[in-house]
Amino acid sequence: MSHSETAKTAASKPRKARILIIEDSLDHWTIIQNAINESFDLPVAVRVSNAEQALSYLQNAQDMGTPLPQVVLLDLYLPTRQQGWQFLENVKNQPAPVSLIPVVVLSHSSDPADIVESYDRGASSYLTKPTDLRAWQTCFQTLSEYWWDAVRLPESRSFQ
Amino acid sequence: MSHSETAKTAASKPRKARILIIEDSLDHWTIIQNAINESFDLPVAVRVSNAEQALSYLQNAQDMGTPLPQVVLLDLYLPTRQQGWQFLENVKNQPAPVSLIPVVVLSHSSDPADIVESYDRGASSYLTKPTDLRAWQTCFQTLSEYWWDAVRLPESRSFQ
Repeated sequence: MSHSETAKTAASKPRKARILIIEDSLDHWTIIQNAINESFDLPVAVRVSNAEQALSYLQNAQDMGTPLPQVVLLDLYLPTRQQGWQFLENVKNQPAPVSLIPVVVLSHSSDPADIVESYDRGASSYLTKPTDLRAWQTCFQTLSEYWWDAVRLPESRSFQ
Repeated sequence: MSHSETAKTAASKPRKARILIIEDSLDHWTIIQNAINESFDLPVAVRVSNAEQALSYLQNAQDMGTPLPQVVLLDLYLPTRQQGWQFLENVKNQPAPVSLIPVVVLSHSSDPADIVESYDRGASSYLTKPTDLRAWQTCFQTLSEYWWDAVRLPESRSFQ
């Protein structure tokens, strides 16, 4: 896709997405919701505010046979980073298809120790939170173009 | 970054990158090299043609204290998928910093079993190979914008 095509795609927002967002800040959730609505067509973006709720959500989806999220966005500090890491480890130690869901950390922290430890515990990638509205929009546009336009997600066989 | 800024960035190619590419097709390597040179400024793109050479390259870099690649692109069928998966498992079972390097599968296969198994063995993401030159260019532009512009790579502490 060329840049002009990228712009066209963004304008028509053809990407559907099921995203689970673990975010304890209501302010950030409001910003994220707007950015998601700008970047996707018919997004299903579910927010939970802590790791326990996220694990319950995944368990319930499995029990009920409803679709799992395609990607999880994880705010690392919930409010401590141990809670974010515990969620990562728990998900990655579960059987497929839950273990296969890419978990992308989206944190205010740019501490190299947080970055390294997150990859070590199974994060697919680590992004730092943007600092202005335009950068939030760009961030979700990039996530959308990478995970939904370019990447083949593991859901292809397991849970669609 | 807006679309116009994305285009500007692409034009000035400010992104440096160290990429290890495991690719057994010389034709695809030629295409990849061109796409990388279009998407990055001063890229260090090293090609090896099988998993053994890739593991040796990583071992040598550690022994010599030279920088490890920031991202590995893995052609799954080398020529069988078992070889690709063996490389993935080997890398993910090594100690940090090698285990932390994101491994992105870039394969001709869109077989859902290949996709699921690759995530299960630690692939950061799975992309299918483009079918025309323009799509190859877009693919590397997207990889560049995601992994080098948006993501914080684990090298921040371990090996820079």
